[in-house]
Amino acid sequence: MSDDRPILAVLGGTGALGAGLALRWARAGYRVIIGSRDRARAEDAAAAAAMVAELPPGVRIEGMDNPVAAATADIVVLSVPFASHDAILDSVRDALSGKILIEVTVPLAPPKVSRVHLPPEGSVAKAAQIRLGDAVRVVAAFHNVAAAHLRDLSHTPDCDALVFGDDRAAREAVIALAAAAGMKGWHGGPIDNAVVGEALTPVLIHINKRHGIDGAGIRITGEATKP
Amino acid sequence: MSDDRPILAVLGGTGALGAGLALRWARAGYRVIIGSRDRARAEDAAAAAAMVAELPPGVRIEGMDNPVAAATADIVVLSVPFASHDAILDSVRDALSGKILIEVTVPLAPPKVSRVHLPPEGSVAKAAQIRLGDAVRVVAAFHNVAAAHLRDLSHTPDCDALVFGDDRAAREAVIALAAAAGMKGWHGGPIDNAVVGEALTPVLIHINKRHGIDGAGIRITGEATKP
Repeated sequence: MSDDRPILAVLGGTGALGAGLALRWARAGYRVIIGSRDRARAEDAAAAAAMVAELPPGVRIEGMDNPVAAATADIVVLSVPFASHDAILDSVRDALSGKILIEVTVPLAPPKVSRVHLPPEGSVAKAAQIRLGDAVRVVAAFHNVAAAHLRDLSHTPDCDALVFGDDRAAREAVIALAAAAGMKGWHGGPIDNAVVGEALTPVLIHINKRHGIDGAGIRITGEATKP
Repeated sequence: MSDDRPILAVLGGTGALGAGLALRWARAGYRVIIGSRDRARAEDAAAAAAMVAELPPGVRIEGMDNPVAAATADIVVLSVPFASHDAILDSVRDALSGKILIEVTVPLAPPKVSRVHLPPEGSVAKAAQIRLGDAVRVVAAFHNVAAAHLRDLSHTPDCDALVFGDDRAAREAVIALAAAAGMKGWHGGPIDNAVVGEALTPVLIHINKRHGIDGAGIRITGEATKP
């Protein structure tokens, strides 16, 4: 590929949601790197994804350890268990300067995964923005996408993506990535609003259980007059 | 009317959202009281609502001051500006014992109404449940319903209602009220999850502004196998 599309690293791309996003973006022609603390696991996940994705010619999914993946990419996606979030973020922070960090991490508190649980800063994404400072543009998105829908390439995900972040151009870049993965992305406002994305996931887990849905999502209703 | 439907009081029913809910419920055959700190304003709002609602025979909308409205009703709805919430709640708390309190209040912080702002307890509804104790079953709902849609009786509101509360039977009662107002209601989990309803409103305000929508809402996607 020789285009100006950003190289994407999905840290935690061995998990269901991260792998699903990696799959969709590679299929749309992006160069995608799956990152993991364990390079061998990252390579296995990349090989598994490449097998199902029917990639366009010249496109590849690679596996690397997290710091190398973050250093190689233009945009870094963090989709990791809450318990290991801070350690993984610290392990890559030197590689993030000047880049967009997409926070997909949900602050679940097992075993009560259908009860909202938030960090003192309000959200994981807000805490990351504080931790990283102005050199990194943190955007929160994709928390409410059911992984099962991303992996099933035969259909378009039946949900929208809420996109939060203080930098509008960074939000636009992530809205473009939402579209590449088959979803309508919405400007949800500043990083202070990321609490909505992170808190919605336990609510959707509750709805799945209580209403017997396999992968509930949300859509925004109303007639949009601007994209 | 002689049926076993609860009598509803909408405190803050002079505001757009409260008035819209009162209108829909009266039209569905419920006896509805609009409450206000100012009884004359409550009566005016009730008269205005009764004029547009084409009420079923025998159904009426009345106006009362808040404490009398709360004492008369079986279910009390609180839809008031955040700044006056605590004072109004205290003015009716003696009348709430044994009842369901539906919290619709959104903790907006003008002038930044498209930025999420939450109280230290996590949400207004959670704070109310703590303040009132076990004798009152607090349910949070209807924060994300655009008032304009409720008032336009010629169409069904294009949005769902997320319903939060620690008591399942109380949530069921509110889901029935959502249906009466033309909306699908979803069990969103315990009162700890009410943060989602309250934080979504500033996000929807942001989406309205940024994407040029008149009254954005949300819908839950996925095939529900249980009501």
